[in-house]
Amino acid sequence: MRHLPYFAETIENITVAMGRDAIFPCVVNNLTNYKVAWLKEETHSLLSIHDKLITRNYRISLSEAMDKRWTLRISSVQESDTGWYMCQINTVPMLSQKAYLHVVGVKLLPESPVIMMNKA
Amino acid sequence: MRHLPYFAETIENITVAMGRDAIFPCVVNNLTNYKVAWLKEETHSLLSIHDKLITRNYRISLSEAMDKRWTLRISSVQESDTGWYMCQINTVPMLSQKAYLHVVGVKLLPESPVIMMNKA
Repeated sequence: MRHLPYFAETIENITVAMGRDAIFPCVVNNLTNYKVAWLKEETHSLLSIHDKLITRNYRISLSEAMDKRWTLRISSVQESDTGWYMCQINTVPMLSQKAYLHVVGVKLLPESPVIMMNKA
Repeated sequence: MRHLPYFAETIENITVAMGRDAIFPCVVNNLTNYKVAWLKEETHSLLSIHDKLITRNYRISLSEAMDKRWTLRISSVQESDTGWYMCQINTVPMLSQKAYLHVVGVKLLPESPVIMMNKA
């Protein structure tokens, strides 16, 4: 059992202002030849596997993908990025942990240029 | 738009007797250099990407993984295999379809060897 991968750190939920970048580090010990994948939970969409980016969403990248650190970066976050991001390892049973991205910010509405509105 | 991948067939829900094999074909036209992934929905677990099997569950394999056909095979199905299986393509937005595996069967209970029980 001690040779199986395990998460070295807990992934923290984060709150990011619209337009800024979100970074989720997934730190794994003893990965050996297992693979780390990142998914967006609500849509079940695969974002990356090992060092390969799968999503074609150009705002998503792997800022670290080697050794112990598998770090997902979401650039210029939008409200639609809100939600749970899951880092999983292909052990049997699968190991996973997830963290929530909360996007906050102000934006000007074109219809009413003098009003600023908080978007939760 | 006509150059984007699309599903050529709908994946059908299937009912399989415990111990038999389940097969889900995912047929895609115009895949070009997009990738097809299979996931188990409830656990969000990645099973395969393109022609690579990711899960280490030895009962799961890709019986076809080329050209248009990306076929997931679950050998010797168990009750725990019950659920939704999703075939997804890494377009933006992601394209996906899913089908349900319903596992049925009789098994002898060790505690009461003369009773056969239907497991829903």
